[in-house]
Amino acid sequence: MKKEHKSALHISSGTDNPGSFDPKLLQKFRRKKHSIEEFVKGILEGDSVLLSQAITLIESNRESDQIEAEKIVAACLEHKNNSIRIGITGSPGVGKSTFIESFGKMLISKGLKVAVLAIDPSSQLSHGSILGDKTRMLELSTNPAAFVRPSPAGDALGGVARKTRETVFLCEAAGYDVIIIETVGVGQSETAVHSMVDFFLLLLLPNAGDELQGIKRGVVEMADLIAVNKSDGPALAQAKLAKAQYQNALHLFPPKNGGWIPSAELCSGLSGMGIESIWEKVEAYRKHTQENNYWQSHRAEQAKYWMHESILQHLKDMFYHHAKIKALLPEIEQALFANKISSFKAAKLLLDKFIE
Amino acid sequence: MKKEHKSALHISSGTDNPGSFDPKLLQKFRRKKHSIEEFVKGILEGDSVLLSQAITLIESNRESDQIEAEKIVAACLEHKNNSIRIGITGSPGVGKSTFIESFGKMLISKGLKVAVLAIDPSSQLSHGSILGDKTRMLELSTNPAAFVRPSPAGDALGGVARKTRETVFLCEAAGYDVIIIETVGVGQSETAVHSMVDFFLLLLLPNAGDELQGIKRGVVEMADLIAVNKSDGPALAQAKLAKAQYQNALHLFPPKNGGWIPSAELCSGLSGMGIESIWEKVEAYRKHTQENNYWQSHRAEQAKYWMHESILQHLKDMFYHHAKIKALLPEIEQALFANKISSFKAAKLLLDKFIE
Repeated sequence: MKKEHKSALHISSGTDNPGSFDPKLLQKFRRKKHSIEEFVKGILEGDSVLLSQAITLIESNRESDQIEAEKIVAACLEHKNNSIRIGITGSPGVGKSTFIESFGKMLISKGLKVAVLAIDPSSQLSHGSILGDKTRMLELSTNPAAFVRPSPAGDALGGVARKTRETVFLCEAAGYDVIIIETVGVGQSETAVHSMVDFFLLLLLPNAGDELQGIKRGVVEMADLIAVNKSDGPALAQAKLAKAQYQNALHLFPPKNGGWIPSAELCSGLSGMGIESIWEKVEAYRKHTQENNYWQSHRAEQAKYWMHESILQHLKDMFYHHAKIKALLPEIEQALFANKISSFKAAKLLLDKFIE
Repeated sequence: MKKEHKSALHISSGTDNPGSFDPKLLQKFRRKKHSIEEFVKGILEGDSVLLSQAITLIESNRESDQIEAEKIVAACLEHKNNSIRIGITGSPGVGKSTFIESFGKMLISKGLKVAVLAIDPSSQLSHGSILGDKTRMLELSTNPAAFVRPSPAGDALGGVARKTRETVFLCEAAGYDVIIIETVGVGQSETAVHSMVDFFLLLLLPNAGDELQGIKRGVVEMADLIAVNKSDGPALAQAKLAKAQYQNALHLFPPKNGGWIPSAELCSGLSGMGIESIWEKVEAYRKHTQENNYWQSHRAEQAKYWMHESILQHLKDMFYHHAKIKALLPEIEQALFANKISSFKAAKLLLDKFIE
């Protein structure tokens, strides 16, 4: 326990973004080289310092680190626990960190271990709007039963997604029961997060509709549950109305694949109101989908999805980073926009060049 | 005009599905070989027999036909008119053909020429649920100002999409003002149709919510307009309620990219009620998006989308049809599902094999 406590005092970060490190801590981390076996043993024993260091290897772009990381992930994969992976999204200002702090503490009080990861490929631009501020989730991040990890900053979404997904496996091997993946809800990352969690929670504000301006189209339909956050004090009446409106809207959309019918709930990350019932909903979802086997098939589908997605990304990189394609593409696009060629002829010209 | 009349008397079909042809007609079509110049000239003059034959070339899988088709499409591309492309979707039973018949006749009465195309990659399975039945849209298909063309049957969606998109260009060169692309709304084809039209119309039934069971998630958010069809007779009261519900639901979703706010309307394909106001909405959309330049940028985006989509499809085919990949994939998938390897390691193993 002592070890965990120590590591939990800082919010760890990837090697990609050394600026946000405490340099002394970095040095300490780098001082001792662990073997794969030591990493795996440590992770399985719940040693969060080693867990952190292993994640740093996953996030590293150095080839030697990646080879090590691959081996650690492979060993940890066999030790997955019965965790639930929850995606949480919502626009900036919706109160995600206060909600997660409150939600996480409630889970810990039930004897559960909680890991909080964040996906935010835009964090370099936004100067780390997610978890970048170390004062966020202060109570949770200093709790020995919690592990809080910010997003690897300034990387392409594909890379961030891979790193986050592999980090989930390590956290599961380390015994975390609830893995929360946070995303800002305004970019491309929600689809990625949705494709790696069991349950997707959308946080909204009591002024129904207004804040949706910032949410990407399609995100509402991804939600397994909508929680109207900040439903306290004078906002309560408006929040109740918002809940009813969302509830009605959700009923007009087709049920989700697992036969789960999303609903809307009121909550307050600040007062803790509704936090328990949201967890009850998550538990009900787990029961429902494990009984009808959707849970299992959904996870298998996700594993397949990420394999094919990763292949696709590589194929696209091979094609679009090819010198000949790079040289030809602007000319082809010009002809396309001038209605000189159709999209399919344009594709053919590029493909012929690529294959040649 | 006489020529058009003649061809409009049959609903043409692709060579892929010769079974649905009148064999005599097929022979007649094949008898005379036209030059590219003859085709282009005929199409530009609005000769719907030549238009039909050119589309048959687009739909053909023979290489010599494809080369000819490519040239015709290229020549026609430069002669695009000021058409509007409208996608219409809805579950089976929602009354799509009656609606399109009514909508098309209304457009013709305004002096417009109307082409109706259908995308239904499942039509071979469903025995041509879309337009396969030649008695559908009988009035429209025999009207000289209309051109009705079923989907090339039994092909992969990518192929159908390409063929439909290129058919749109020929119809535009032939002077059709409104191009309607119909899809069943239950499969993968809505996204494809949505990506090739200016305006996307979703038809629903008055019993709000019930029929949505059949609609794929995400389709509602694609709609620029929801039309509650069959809003006549005893269903009117229910239809009004449904309209209000959809209207509320639509307000809870973010506005579309062009700044257009989708709404819900009542209509009846049978009585013609509401058909005019739907056209007014379409016209308002055109005005709104042409003024803010979204119309133009959206079409350019679509051209780019289909180029990249087509490239991606080819790259995927190259990869997944590769003998080595075919041989290795089942084994890799097994290891993936058994948690022996991660999705990214699985992808890497396959890619290494492919590159080698």
